[in-house]
Amino acid sequence: MANVAKKVSWSGRDRDDDEDGRAGETTPLLNGTGPGAAGGARQLTPSSFLRIGQLSNVDLNEDIHELTELPRQRPNEIPHNEKLLSLKYESLDYDNSENQLFLEEERRINHAAFRTVEIKRWVICAMIGILTGLVACFIDIVVENLAGLKYRVVKDNIDKFTAKGGLSFSLLLWATLNASVVMVGSVIVAFIEPVAAGSGIPQIKCYLNGVKIPHVVRLKTLVIKVCGVILSVVGGLAVGKEGPMIHSGAVIAAGISQGRSTSLKRDFKIFEYFRRDTEKRDFVSAGAAAGVSAAFGAPVGGVLFSLEEGASFWNQFLTWRIFFASMISTFTLNSVLSVYHGNAWDLSSPGLINFGRFDSEKMGYTIQEIPIFIFMGVVGGILGALFNALNYWLTMFRIRYIHRPCLQVVEAMLVAAVTATVGFVMIYCSRDCQPIQGSSVAYPLQLFCADGEYNSMATAFFNTPEKSVVNLFHDPPGSYNPMTLGMFTLMYFFLACWTYGLTVSAGVFIPSLLIGAAWGRLFGISLSYLTKGSIWADPGKYALMGAAAQLGGIVRMTLSLTVIMMEATGNVTYGFPIMLVLMTAKIVGDYFVEGLYDMHIQLQSVPFLHWEAPVTSHSLTAREVMSTPVTCLRRIERVGTVVDILSDTSSNHNGFPVVESNPDTTQVAGLRGLILRSQLIVLLKHKVFVERANLSLVQRRLKLKDFRDAYPRFPPIQSIHVSQDERECMIDLSEFMNPSPYTVPQEASLPRVFKLFRALGLRHLVVVDNRNEVVGMVTRKDLARYRLGKEGLEELSLAQT
Amino acid sequence: MANVAKKVSWSGRDRDDDEDGRAGETTPLLNGTGPGAAGGARQLTPSSFLRIGQLSNVDLNEDIHELTELPRQRPNEIPHNEKLLSLKYESLDYDNSENQLFLEEERRINHAAFRTVEIKRWVICAMIGILTGLVACFIDIVVENLAGLKYRVVKDNIDKFTAKGGLSFSLLLWATLNASVVMVGSVIVAFIEPVAAGSGIPQIKCYLNGVKIPHVVRLKTLVIKVCGVILSVVGGLAVGKEGPMIHSGAVIAAGISQGRSTSLKRDFKIFEYFRRDTEKRDFVSAGAAAGVSAAFGAPVGGVLFSLEEGASFWNQFLTWRIFFASMISTFTLNSVLSVYHGNAWDLSSPGLINFGRFDSEKMGYTIQEIPIFIFMGVVGGILGALFNALNYWLTMFRIRYIHRPCLQVVEAMLVAAVTATVGFVMIYCSRDCQPIQGSSVAYPLQLFCADGEYNSMATAFFNTPEKSVVNLFHDPPGSYNPMTLGMFTLMYFFLACWTYGLTVSAGVFIPSLLIGAAWGRLFGISLSYLTKGSIWADPGKYALMGAAAQLGGIVRMTLSLTVIMMEATGNVTYGFPIMLVLMTAKIVGDYFVEGLYDMHIQLQSVPFLHWEAPVTSHSLTAREVMSTPVTCLRRIERVGTVVDILSDTSSNHNGFPVVESNPDTTQVAGLRGLILRSQLIVLLKHKVFVERANLSLVQRRLKLKDFRDAYPRFPPIQSIHVSQDERECMIDLSEFMNPSPYTVPQEASLPRVFKLFRALGLRHLVVVDNRNEVVGMVTRKDLARYRLGKEGLEELSLAQT
Repeated sequence: MANVAKKVSWSGRDRDDDEDGRAGETTPLLNGTGPGAAGGARQLTPSSFLRIGQLSNVDLNEDIHELTELPRQRPNEIPHNEKLLSLKYESLDYDNSENQLFLEEERRINHAAFRTVEIKRWVICAMIGILTGLVACFIDIVVENLAGLKYRVVKDNIDKFTAKGGLSFSLLLWATLNASVVMVGSVIVAFIEPVAAGSGIPQIKCYLNGVKIPHVVRLKTLVIKVCGVILSVVGGLAVGKEGPMIHSGAVIAAGISQGRSTSLKRDFKIFEYFRRDTEKRDFVSAGAAAGVSAAFGAPVGGVLFSLEEGASFWNQFLTWRIFFASMISTFTLNSVLSVYHGNAWDLSSPGLINFGRFDSEKMGYTIQEIPIFIFMGVVGGILGALFNALNYWLTMFRIRYIHRPCLQVVEAMLVAAVTATVGFVMIYCSRDCQPIQGSSVAYPLQLFCADGEYNSMATAFFNTPEKSVVNLFHDPPGSYNPMTLGMFTLMYFFLACWTYGLTVSAGVFIPSLLIGAAWGRLFGISLSYLTKGSIWADPGKYALMGAAAQLGGIVRMTLSLTVIMMEATGNVTYGFPIMLVLMTAKIVGDYFVEGLYDMHIQLQSVPFLHWEAPVTSHSLTAREVMSTPVTCLRRIERVGTVVDILSDTSSNHNGFPVVESNPDTTQVAGLRGLILRSQLIVLLKHKVFVERANLSLVQRRLKLKDFRDAYPRFPPIQSIHVSQDERECMIDLSEFMNPSPYTVPQEASLPRVFKLFRALGLRHLVVVDNRNEVVGMVTRKDLARYRLGKEGLEELSLAQT
Repeated sequence: MANVAKKVSWSGRDRDDDEDGRAGETTPLLNGTGPGAAGGARQLTPSSFLRIGQLSNVDLNEDIHELTELPRQRPNEIPHNEKLLSLKYESLDYDNSENQLFLEEERRINHAAFRTVEIKRWVICAMIGILTGLVACFIDIVVENLAGLKYRVVKDNIDKFTAKGGLSFSLLLWATLNASVVMVGSVIVAFIEPVAAGSGIPQIKCYLNGVKIPHVVRLKTLVIKVCGVILSVVGGLAVGKEGPMIHSGAVIAAGISQGRSTSLKRDFKIFEYFRRDTEKRDFVSAGAAAGVSAAFGAPVGGVLFSLEEGASFWNQFLTWRIFFASMISTFTLNSVLSVYHGNAWDLSSPGLINFGRFDSEKMGYTIQEIPIFIFMGVVGGILGALFNALNYWLTMFRIRYIHRPCLQVVEAMLVAAVTATVGFVMIYCSRDCQPIQGSSVAYPLQLFCADGEYNSMATAFFNTPEKSVVNLFHDPPGSYNPMTLGMFTLMYFFLACWTYGLTVSAGVFIPSLLIGAAWGRLFGISLSYLTKGSIWADPGKYALMGAAAQLGGIVRMTLSLTVIMMEATGNVTYGFPIMLVLMTAKIVGDYFVEGLYDMHIQLQSVPFLHWEAPVTSHSLTAREVMSTPVTCLRRIERVGTVVDILSDTSSNHNGFPVVESNPDTTQVAGLRGLILRSQLIVLLKHKVFVERANLSLVQRRLKLKDFRDAYPRFPPIQSIHVSQDERECMIDLSEFMNPSPYTVPQEASLPRVFKLFRALGLRHLVVVDNRNEVVGMVTRKDLARYRLGKEGLEELSLAQT
């Protein structure tokens, strides 16, 4: 039997600071015990008690009683670990609420109008592609110019002081430059928009999975992200500008598809049809794909990334639109950058990073090399796991001690200065000189080398990471000596690990590739040495495999990463070895520790739903999984009751089953529909109710537009004033509730519930008994809390943070 | 309002000849009217009458009465058109029946055992890849040798008779050779396994969609398919060997994953866990992908093909396994063919067809060319639509007049002879001579050309189509004169159109590519002529675009085809223009007529579920869509009733809702579960019942193994003998029924029902009312019959054929 230990730390909860005042799905009302009472399977009372509306004073008092009783069990500070599931994240609703209003609208729309909607979708995708491409161009051009400026200044300075001594001034200059640039980048992130930190890939993964991360697709986030990533790269951190493109694309998509900006308070009155979670999610997938496409020149890889991370329900038309956006994105980037680089028509820059041409004739692989590649995959998996483990401890440390913005900025500056110092010392100590002729080094540092030679360590450190990667792939054999590569790998590994998780906008793709390329090339050189310089042991090829192995070992992406690497090399020949390497790296890495993104998602305690329920969870049924009792509303309900329920801070449900209100059918209170908090808020705001005495009167009609205008920032219940008279009015929910919510019987197994929930992107799933009476509710947290741990099935605790 | 016209031609029906004696899902019992009474929305009686078990004599008589009354409305021969939906196709069940036995087994299996299952899945995928690759090698090598032999014989003969006159002997030899080879190929298909005809892609699409096509994944089909495709290609038909690889891969996958062959009566007692539709489907996806991968050297394209056509629920692990199988498949093919061709280690043959190296530097495209590519897409769309329209009329003709196997063989022979004749005449009449030096022609025919020259028309006609395609892509400018290309395009277009649909195993990919490459090259030459020979107008590049346009215009695949073309060219540079061309071709083509595969699926009246419900179908609800009344069983049911229901040839239901059997709850007969015909058959076969007097006795226990052993060919009910005494026994279904079938309320809109059904791969969806009583049943046919026609929503008729 699986070991099902349950810890529910508390259920009484404060309001969170989310702007629309909602918090939490329909959560269980205090049916758990404190952490002290953990252990053993959860005992459920078999009573299927229905709390129909009317929160009596007794009820409220009970809640308060329990609230005041609980704090002694509540620890002052929750040790932040991955065994918790935070209640502060809400779900997105990827299932349309098919209420009467919606159906009436859909029925009014004829075939031609649907075609218009379809054309609009394509237009939006084209715009997403174009804008994402342009943003990528902007980042690329600005980084290139600023970094060029910086390197030229430092190089001049170094050249000056190399002759007359006093290189410590150069170091100081370099470190100060880096630290100050990074400071600006860190300040804007830490103080203005913390969600713009990092690559944004975990956040987008969560969004596509159905978790609402506050502010993640805001215009402000985009601006901070773009500025932040430019500053991080120019500041010389061990970061890339590719990962953030995915986030940027997603924000662009979310913005365009809604036809308005709530930040700028502009509503263009277009694309109103798309103002709901389902449609927005589809466009965000396209935006993320366009971002990948622009970053790596990998349109197919972008589509696969979006599908791997997000779309649970594969739809051919959607996929084709996503592909269109991706293609447009890389094409836009390619055109603009080609023009910028002066060779207008040749379309030679499909992505922000371009691995360069791998000539398959010169650098083809043979069957004998396959075991070697697999071995490299093993190394990549181990190194990746090490990277993730180190980063895990670092992140735990940061969560505990470096949570104040000022400290975060100071840490970022420190890392920037250290990065510069390490680079400088490494370059200074290196005695690896290479002839400058025929090499493609952008900023050759002569330092102590003879005239006409340059310091080889400087090609790796004194350059943007993208250029270093390409150099490692393509520089002719002999460009680096093994010592240089070894030292570089070691140093860069720790620097990159320290850098990931800083409060700056930056990606981990390029540093991973760089580490991998360095040890891969080292490996290739050793191999060539061992085999007495066989021609097949091309160090560039091994650098590529090393890069794939290292990246795979860190992020553990599979299909999409293979395709991205294939497209970035512009060559399908390496498909098979890259796949082998990535697969090996993933298997080996997974043996030790999770992938970096998943790890960070878990550290944030996000209720993330994986692809399938844990394999050993067939022993659980909906009955054990669901939250109960459920707060239900009657079809014709008293306004005061609705207000009380919505204001009840101890539960904060977001979806309410609607049951039959006929008083003489007390026995069978069958499910009639489901209504959302956001819908109720709009109803209350527009005063859609009638006096109890005049029930025959028709209540005010609302249009779907009223709901769309309020989307996605519905006001909190506190901002809606309901007078005492109005409290006694009645509200008829029939027209607004979803009359056909998905339901499961209590006997359904967890995998079955999970499959339904995941495949349809649900937010609320009502559990009914044999007579169609509501007995429970399953939400994302009820499913996400079951996980396959080392010793079998484990259950995460729910927590406030 | 949508125009909902309904025609139900009849409901009383004969048994079909399917080997397991089942036919049709739960179909409506005569609730439609004859074709004469068509028009207007269906009127449903609001009564939710439950037919609980006990088919009384009255019931039966009623059925017979209606049966005898109906034939006057039944036309003698149904005009076979695409407005029908055949009842002879059954559904596959992609939703696990989670009954007690299943859950008990799953609960017994611990974490380690699940890992074993997972490893087995990977092993099976590797085996699928290897075997598919080997089969592709076998086909390739045999075709190469046999075709080489044939062309050498004919060439020698032609060379002999060119000098001394009497070339008609050569023509006779060529035509006879072709016709006799094709005769053999056609005989084995027509007389032994008709399902092996064609490319098999429509059949695999249907299988992955959830439709059971009899014999489609049998070993016999594979053998006939492989032999058939070899004979068709050697016989000189305008066909390719690529499409059938997809079918072959699927059969291999289905065979291996079950660990036994029912045809060979061998059970290896392995992989028993995978003996159900869900698991088998997953492996068949992998097999289809491996087939694409081997055919085109396109592993990613293969994965996308499988996903586009089949997997409705995207699962990361599954996708990764599919990708693994694809990679292994192309790698196996590559290794074996490389060894066969003597350059053992260079891995230069990733697929059956290889478009050859497109040098992106020489053949890159510029932005100005994009409008030209789009224009080519338009041409491809129009030509593709023309091809499909012609083929449609041809197929209708064939269905009406050429349905006897002998006639089919004669037609195939005729086409073979005509193909040879047309080729010969074209070559004979052509005066286009090219210098033999520096060209890569395999069988240069000199004919009336000067010494050292060859007939250019012969490179196109006197060659396997694969080689002709590559020649058109890569022969240097000037290798073909425009007249040759024009005539070739015209002739080959009609030949290919005539050939598709013959009773031979053959694919349409290569002929389409060849037609497109020919007119594309012609287009390129014209362009070069118009622009006074600008260097950018490389005819090979335009041949590639033309090939893409033509293929896209015919088959209308999108994402997967783009990737397949990209991988086959080994170059990602052309991704954007190929995508544009394919998209334009699809949009233009769709304006006129459907894609070739979809057209043939419709002509077969297969109840195929598209990705989404028709956009204007929100006006329909489950109440209108469902079949009613439903034959229900009680939880403890009389054996005689079960036998009667299963034997009832007029209904032939396959799934039966199980309702509460307590006699005093007549009012609320709530749904308790769902049981399948196949399960009941197994129960009856194993005599799992007890005497009515001894209800307290425990009935015989069955194991999941008993069900798996019977899968997939469950015996017909007629073969199970139940004595009169046994008929009076009682059978307890609780343990075997699925206790948590998915349900929808009557108010659910059609798109909502459709989404649930499609996303979860259901076979039966129970419609319940507010009290959880069964009021109807939705099956595949109920959903597939609604389609978006030219004038809005239309409803297909159900028919027997």
